[in-house]
Amino acid sequence: MKIALAQLNYHIGNFEQNEEKIIKAIARAKQEQADVIVFAELAIGGYPAKDLLRNAVFLDQCQQSLSQIATHCDTIDCIIGAPIRNAYEEGKQLSNAAIVITKGQITDCRKKSLLPDYDVFDEYRYFEPNHNIQCIELQGKKIALTICEDLWDNDHDNSYKGDLMLELAQEKPDLIINIAASPFSYIHFDKRISVLSNNVLKANAPLIYVNQIGAHLDIIFDGRSLAMNKSAEVIKELNAFDEDLQYVTLEHGDLQTTAVPQPAKLGEIASIHQALLLGLKDYFAKSGFKKAVLGLSGGLDSAIVAALAVEALGAENVLAVLMPSVYSTTHSIKDAMDLVDNTGCQHLVLPIKEIAQSFEDTLQEAFVGLKADTTEENIQARTRGTLLMAISNKLGHILLNTSNKSEAAVGYGTLYGDMAGSLSVIGDVYKTQAYKLASYINREKEIIPINTIVKPPSAELRPDQKDSDSLPDYEMLDAILYQLIELEKSGSEVVKLGFDEQLVQRITKLVNNAEFKRFQAPPILRVSPKAFGSGRQMPLVAKFSY
Amino acid sequence: MKIALAQLNYHIGNFEQNEEKIIKAIARAKQEQADVIVFAELAIGGYPAKDLLRNAVFLDQCQQSLSQIATHCDTIDCIIGAPIRNAYEEGKQLSNAAIVITKGQITDCRKKSLLPDYDVFDEYRYFEPNHNIQCIELQGKKIALTICEDLWDNDHDNSYKGDLMLELAQEKPDLIINIAASPFSYIHFDKRISVLSNNVLKANAPLIYVNQIGAHLDIIFDGRSLAMNKSAEVIKELNAFDEDLQYVTLEHGDLQTTAVPQPAKLGEIASIHQALLLGLKDYFAKSGFKKAVLGLSGGLDSAIVAALAVEALGAENVLAVLMPSVYSTTHSIKDAMDLVDNTGCQHLVLPIKEIAQSFEDTLQEAFVGLKADTTEENIQARTRGTLLMAISNKLGHILLNTSNKSEAAVGYGTLYGDMAGSLSVIGDVYKTQAYKLASYINREKEIIPINTIVKPPSAELRPDQKDSDSLPDYEMLDAILYQLIELEKSGSEVVKLGFDEQLVQRITKLVNNAEFKRFQAPPILRVSPKAFGSGRQMPLVAKFSY
Repeated sequence: MKIALAQLNYHIGNFEQNEEKIIKAIARAKQEQADVIVFAELAIGGYPAKDLLRNAVFLDQCQQSLSQIATHCDTIDCIIGAPIRNAYEEGKQLSNAAIVITKGQITDCRKKSLLPDYDVFDEYRYFEPNHNIQCIELQGKKIALTICEDLWDNDHDNSYKGDLMLELAQEKPDLIINIAASPFSYIHFDKRISVLSNNVLKANAPLIYVNQIGAHLDIIFDGRSLAMNKSAEVIKELNAFDEDLQYVTLEHGDLQTTAVPQPAKLGEIASIHQALLLGLKDYFAKSGFKKAVLGLSGGLDSAIVAALAVEALGAENVLAVLMPSVYSTTHSIKDAMDLVDNTGCQHLVLPIKEIAQSFEDTLQEAFVGLKADTTEENIQARTRGTLLMAISNKLGHILLNTSNKSEAAVGYGTLYGDMAGSLSVIGDVYKTQAYKLASYINREKEIIPINTIVKPPSAELRPDQKDSDSLPDYEMLDAILYQLIELEKSGSEVVKLGFDEQLVQRITKLVNNAEFKRFQAPPILRVSPKAFGSGRQMPLVAKFSY
Repeated sequence: MKIALAQLNYHIGNFEQNEEKIIKAIARAKQEQADVIVFAELAIGGYPAKDLLRNAVFLDQCQQSLSQIATHCDTIDCIIGAPIRNAYEEGKQLSNAAIVITKGQITDCRKKSLLPDYDVFDEYRYFEPNHNIQCIELQGKKIALTICEDLWDNDHDNSYKGDLMLELAQEKPDLIINIAASPFSYIHFDKRISVLSNNVLKANAPLIYVNQIGAHLDIIFDGRSLAMNKSAEVIKELNAFDEDLQYVTLEHGDLQTTAVPQPAKLGEIASIHQALLLGLKDYFAKSGFKKAVLGLSGGLDSAIVAALAVEALGAENVLAVLMPSVYSTTHSIKDAMDLVDNTGCQHLVLPIKEIAQSFEDTLQEAFVGLKADTTEENIQARTRGTLLMAISNKLGHILLNTSNKSEAAVGYGTLYGDMAGSLSVIGDVYKTQAYKLASYINREKEIIPINTIVKPPSAELRPDQKDSDSLPDYEMLDAILYQLIELEKSGSEVVKLGFDEQLVQRITKLVNNAEFKRFQAPPILRVSPKAFGSGRQMPLVAKFSY
């Protein structure tokens, strides 16, 4: 039995384009004489379609798309993910299903048993879990057909369901197939391999795993679909962050493949780099825009975002705007211009001195007798935000936000100012990771000016300001934030690890106080196991300060 | 058996204050010789505590709070909602429980079986559903102890669980107790009465229902706890939108009460008015702020928000800022000043002409050869947003957003401009409802100037602009939006109802295109069955246009 693994990039709700891709993959697999082709979870409709799954017309279109695809499966069988309406009267009306198509007809399906409902996942909102656990029969083979989370029952905080693979293993399956929509994080790949291996060994059966690739706002699918033999060796691995179509054969009781070069293992920073590029590309491609605008300060964060945008969209589609104030240093302007020269992107210079002054004049009477404070710094940041949005409105460029995760965590940013934008490119990248990312971007030649990397970080909103005036050293800050955010520890638990108590208290307070700002932040490309956004939901008017 | 219904306003994570309230209610009930006191769902910790429920210290504090409260229950038994850690090894580690305290000890509990996971609810994220359905015994009585959603199994799109009350009814309970955290919407009360009645008749047992009151950002609990006799008659109803403590007696096989005047039934607009006042009061009280600032245009929406803020916070705590532009009409300034006079609130006048001009001067070269369009209108709106935020930053006032639901739906508003603010007060009130609300606010004397109500709505961002230049008549717009948003219909389904096809298409397109703006909007006080915010989650880069 020759099996095609089809790893595609789906666009939520773009039925025409998705269908065309799927049908093209089927045609290629038929040419290669494959017996079965396997697509990812919710290939039909896209993932996450969110409340579109409550829309009758959307669900009808999923059904039509499935019927249309089935007509192409005459000489090949097909397994593909789709939302399907349940026949039973009680419970949620929808299931997340793996559809089985044989001889041009939908002949069977398996519904997802374990519905993830942690971090960015929210599947109980839409789907009824499966209540019957059973293998399918396909071309005389017994297949343990499962969907993504179904294999993770021992590894996540899921609602109780027993051990799915142990139950399926009693039927002695010839093959496990897992179709997935499994988002990238820089630690997820190793964990995934270990979970899949455990299932292979438990069932004593080889496994085919087909993931999506592509980005949908915050969630980025990395692909890396694979085949594992009975000994839990990866015998085939598909592209990371790119579409792919590959074949394996089930014979002599195990999966076989012709030797092909396996993709090189990606390191943490290299994988983040690729994920962010895909996130940028897909945001523009899927929302129908071409051009980006961003504020370029001469500092590290905006330089990284500009370099990534140029790589993803092309230098001709990226407009960097320099908005010097009276506090901007000459080296900042030079560093920003060096970046413009290095990348070849478009640029504009719009000094903000006069606008900021006219704000202060207008407010003079209202603020009489009050000292200058962060208000005046915020006015500068919001002047820049307004200029960038004016360019976005007039020229149709999408504004990219350039905040990093360390700033977002402690609220070191101005709402409607430097926190503005349609997409936060590096909002899930800590400052210490940003330095590594900058070096990686410069791995072949200097793109990000060295002076941008080596100078002390500064917001330049008052004379001689440095980040270190208001914030602890980034190495220390990020180490504490990682414990609080990624590992979800309480402040008191972090102190027990040996961190300074006063510092931890100060940082937890900053993190809590910034919840209201993050509530209105742009969507963030997620590359870590715990990004700000829907994956971390905090009450805003709570008193608790852990 | 004399039973106290304790309806309190809890603050998420404010253990000290919540405990004090609970203990005070217990002391009063003991004085009145009550045998049992019943508190709401998740009275311990507060609702919705969101990801604080994943924090070990938060859960420890819930446990400590419960132990502390138990020591006061020597001569009275107590039923109270709390999150508890599960002993079993599989499944989610937490349950949403009704704790039973007898003789100062925690002696029993019942966990929530039906976990809501629609609209604003997300309980599968945190809780394991109950797997054992059984009554409790208390003082010789058999009690069907349930939590909120447990009684709604036939009425919502829940995951399958059978019919809970039918199972419990087999034990022939003497009483049903339902503890709840059931959010207000202007249609919810009648539905709630009907659901509770059905359960009473099904079990042939009287019912005690204890709800929370209080607002937590978007969610507002209306209270209106009640007792129903076996014939499903409401024999006691507690305050709407206010704390209360009342008693009923279980004797002769039914609930009895001394005749007390029942609260008057609240109409749609009156209940929205009370809900918004509570939402405002609690936002400030629970976040520790006193003073509010808002932009006052002379139009209807900002006038309503100013009037509500004055009623909720006091005239001395509300600062209205008039920010006339070159396009502002003299009647707008007069209308705004009339509102200031009628309410006695503070005010400031900050003309924006010079700031807007300095933005245009700075951008002149970049925009050379390009026509004026909405960019220049947005600059005015963002100038106002920046001025208001400067006042908020300098004086510590919270910025109230004044957008209505019709505008939010079609994107008739400027991100970071008039969409700025920490709390959207009337973002769940359609324009047609806003007119009714204004009349209601004026029911005794003119607070909102009549001219503000009768003049045609205008954003006044260009000469002689009217809302009707860009938008259909609000009666028609709101009728279509209600079908699309509240009833979640597809455009094609709305057309079948007789609405004009081109108009429905235009509106659905506007609604879809504004998703990215609403993603960054402030939290909205929820008063309808479907508000923008967490209750309605749409993908931003999807292609589907229903």
